[in-house]
Amino acid sequence: MNIHNILIAGEYQKEFETYFPNMDQKEFRFLPVEAITEHDLDWADAYVGFKPCVNFQIPKIKWVHSFNAGVNNFLEIEGWNENQTLLTRTICSFGERISEYCLSYLLTNLQYHGQFQQQQQQKKWCQRTPKLLKDVTIVIFGTGAIGQEVAKTFTYFGSTVIGVSESGKQKEYFHKVVPISSVSSIIEKANWIISTLPLTHHTKQLFNEKLFSQTKSVGFINVGRGATVDEKALITALDSGNVHTAILDVVEIEPLPEESTLWLRKDVIITPHISAVTELNEAILCFAQTLQALESNHPVSNSVDFDKGY
Amino acid sequence: MNIHNILIAGEYQKEFETYFPNMDQKEFRFLPVEAITEHDLDWADAYVGFKPCVNFQIPKIKWVHSFNAGVNNFLEIEGWNENQTLLTRTICSFGERISEYCLSYLLTNLQYHGQFQQQQQQKKWCQRTPKLLKDVTIVIFGTGAIGQEVAKTFTYFGSTVIGVSESGKQKEYFHKVVPISSVSSIIEKANWIISTLPLTHHTKQLFNEKLFSQTKSVGFINVGRGATVDEKALITALDSGNVHTAILDVVEIEPLPEESTLWLRKDVIITPHISAVTELNEAILCFAQTLQALESNHPVSNSVDFDKGY
Repeated sequence: MNIHNILIAGEYQKEFETYFPNMDQKEFRFLPVEAITEHDLDWADAYVGFKPCVNFQIPKIKWVHSFNAGVNNFLEIEGWNENQTLLTRTICSFGERISEYCLSYLLTNLQYHGQFQQQQQQKKWCQRTPKLLKDVTIVIFGTGAIGQEVAKTFTYFGSTVIGVSESGKQKEYFHKVVPISSVSSIIEKANWIISTLPLTHHTKQLFNEKLFSQTKSVGFINVGRGATVDEKALITALDSGNVHTAILDVVEIEPLPEESTLWLRKDVIITPHISAVTELNEAILCFAQTLQALESNHPVSNSVDFDKGY
Repeated sequence: MNIHNILIAGEYQKEFETYFPNMDQKEFRFLPVEAITEHDLDWADAYVGFKPCVNFQIPKIKWVHSFNAGVNNFLEIEGWNENQTLLTRTICSFGERISEYCLSYLLTNLQYHGQFQQQQQQKKWCQRTPKLLKDVTIVIFGTGAIGQEVAKTFTYFGSTVIGVSESGKQKEYFHKVVPISSVSSIIEKANWIISTLPLTHHTKQLFNEKLFSQTKSVGFINVGRGATVDEKALITALDSGNVHTAILDVVEIEPLPEESTLWLRKDVIITPHISAVTELNEAILCFAQTLQALESNHPVSNSVDFDKGY
């Protein structure tokens, strides 16, 4: 692929200089995303950024590189397949970041941090033996690069890790992977559910009343996309005890609206979509590597499959 | 060693039956620790329990097995070397338990749990990128079985792990191990200090004003023994910022006295000595394995070296 004119949605000139010491071999144009005009889009071979600009049009661009791992914002635009535009996404330390996020909240629960904090405030010395990761069964939805890295981490500690994916294809680091159609067979064994699912037509509101009706006092962590969860159904499940705690790094509408009842629940932890923040330097490095692969006609491992949606 | 009469300080008859299906091959006597008399001690070849009874006398016993990993309570009694009494201690999942305890509190800090919890209470959506374990330097005091297991865990996540021991002998899972005499050379690089030290003449108040004067905004976790820390010096270090957070699972006097100022500090987390609670079934299993080794004249890996004190 011949890429010469590169439009960057964001004023990252300085940061790019580190990774492109010979920037004069390409034409770069750095603009705040709101300032991008149709002329800029006409000019560009490639568009690089966290999100599409408002007047984004696919036919004019050969290649789009998303600084995020989740690309549902780009996929809302139509015409990818028709125009054979390449869409690539950033895959860097997301797996590592999301693993440490999940591990931190799961351990907080198993180690009874909340109880000991309360006791400390009351100057109370009262022992309770923490639970160990090896005694926990974790069901991970999504067995791609991120889900697999999360599985690897928990498997290291001896947890029983079961994967759920569309195909049910077996993957390393999972005790087993089941297809989403067989989820009923394993879901009631779960002590924790971790969703790493992207938002697609198939995953929208996948965590609904029917699914939560089959869980038994489970902890639920969402590090995928908020709209994969029917939030009303989640609240019902929290009320009934089918879910004992929900750790939500992503929600249906972000930022979470002030009127949401999720904010003030004691059994819900809200974090502001930080489990896999793209560090700009990593995102630029991933872009540089993808560009190099494209120009050398090497295979690109981070291209988006438009049928799957990720 | 010929062991026939076994005195168990605790009414654990039922629990022992699981591990000794043929209990009639030995004589067992189960008694609450307060109820043990001199006659019982005269009768016993072996004494097994969490602590010595008040009238405990070494000359009468061939072997003592402690249900704990730390044996300072038994070592307060004199005459071990003179009487060539064997002292063994329980080593089971302590390394695993202590690793998960340390990891839970370190991750809580790196993932900014406290800040996000506050923001949630204020319905505030404000991002901050968590730190990763790979960017953290951890200095572990004590490079024995427990310290090594903790090192293994953090090394898995890519942290830089430096050990401190009396000899400075190199051990697996540590980037390097330095002798305690050279601690000044590495202590200022530490983001976190984890002490797994037993209480001995050498380690008493090892964490004193001099040591804390060399740390730079460090997190301090004590999962060893409380009396290895000069608590006044720790409080001074917290006030000056040389220590930013102290996570104390052990303290000088346990339970921590009500009048201690440690209870109500925001920069101190107190847990009631739960990072390596002995699960009774594990302790009994360890005892059974030690007994079998002794009777088969196999080497015993959990015997206490009285000169070292652990």
